[in-house]
Amino acid sequence: MTVTDSSPIRNGVDTAALFATLDAVKGQPEIAKFQFRATNRWISGTHNRGTINEYYGAGQEHVRPQDFTYHADHPPVLVGGDNGPTPAEYLLHALAACLTAGLANVAAARGIELTEVHSTVEGDIDLLGILGLDDTVRNGYEQIRVSFVVKGNAPPDKLREVVEQSRRRSAVFDVVTNSVPVTIDVTTA
Amino acid sequence: MTVTDSSPIRNGVDTAALFATLDAVKGQPEIAKFQFRATNRWISGTHNRGTINEYYGAGQEHVRPQDFTYHADHPPVLVGGDNGPTPAEYLLHALAACLTAGLANVAAARGIELTEVHSTVEGDIDLLGILGLDDTVRNGYEQIRVSFVVKGNAPPDKLREVVEQSRRRSAVFDVVTNSVPVTIDVTTA
Repeated sequence: MTVTDSSPIRNGVDTAALFATLDAVKGQPEIAKFQFRATNRWISGTHNRGTINEYYGAGQEHVRPQDFTYHADHPPVLVGGDNGPTPAEYLLHALAACLTAGLANVAAARGIELTEVHSTVEGDIDLLGILGLDDTVRNGYEQIRVSFVVKGNAPPDKLREVVEQSRRRSAVFDVVTNSVPVTIDVTTA
Repeated sequence: MTVTDSSPIRNGVDTAALFATLDAVKGQPEIAKFQFRATNRWISGTHNRGTINEYYGAGQEHVRPQDFTYHADHPPVLVGGDNGPTPAEYLLHALAACLTAGLANVAAARGIELTEVHSTVEGDIDLLGILGLDDTVRNGYEQIRVSFVVKGNAPPDKLREVVEQSRRRSAVFDVVTNSVPVTIDVTTA
């Protein structure tokens, strides 16, 4: 591990801590079990507010010093008030953010210094599905395209391999491209 | 449509506009084709910032008066700086927001006045997957549970049916429980 020893902080990633974390999990695999959570409160119409804070992981509950709160809504063209992005847009944001975080970690682990990473995600959706007007049209995105611009001190093929490895280990990419079982419970009292 | 005519605004939903939108799409189905987008810029380490604004829909490009920007990061226990939620948490937020928006629309269309809607989403994830330590463990959530509390002027079974109809027509629920093809392009110059 000469590369990591000579410069433990790379791309803002503490590679020494990253490798120490991997070693810790190898020795105690049960600390890798996490549970993430989000809560949501309806405000009016399609406008609602989500809150993210507590999570379980590394064997204990974690409470952040502050809540992260995010408004969601539909735009006026969909009879909403534009008080926040649509939920479907938050999903595209989650995908870009996950791939980007992984990319920085992978590059750091491989000794590659990144200078710039930005991306655009586009999702095509035909609302005939969610409007209930055509049962042959799905509710969600038909296709999602991610376009990355990645610059750093490595040849193009090495930078592409970093993106590919991030894709291969992305939690959100996995959720979007494979299915996850979802249960919904309702309390009315 | 006596119900909607007698009280066009219900749950903050302009039901007259909602039904007019449905009629417009029935007459011109191509206006239902939308494209949503998110952009992302890497900041440092696992910290990055997403921006949501422009989208295409109803036959034209739309630019909102302001960008919506959202920071994402990993928590310290995952060698991040907690500058925002994890991408995987944004995904849970998107799911709750989508089901909640749909629920308000469905209730309004059915003449049900809601008084309170809140929810919690939990996602179980074993990081042995994304850490590359066990190839039998998936990268994403193994299971997601949504718990709704719904109150309004309808019997429990009618309120449950509203949630069920929202689930049946949710874009994000569809994406999470079914797969979407995702392509990733990389530019390195």
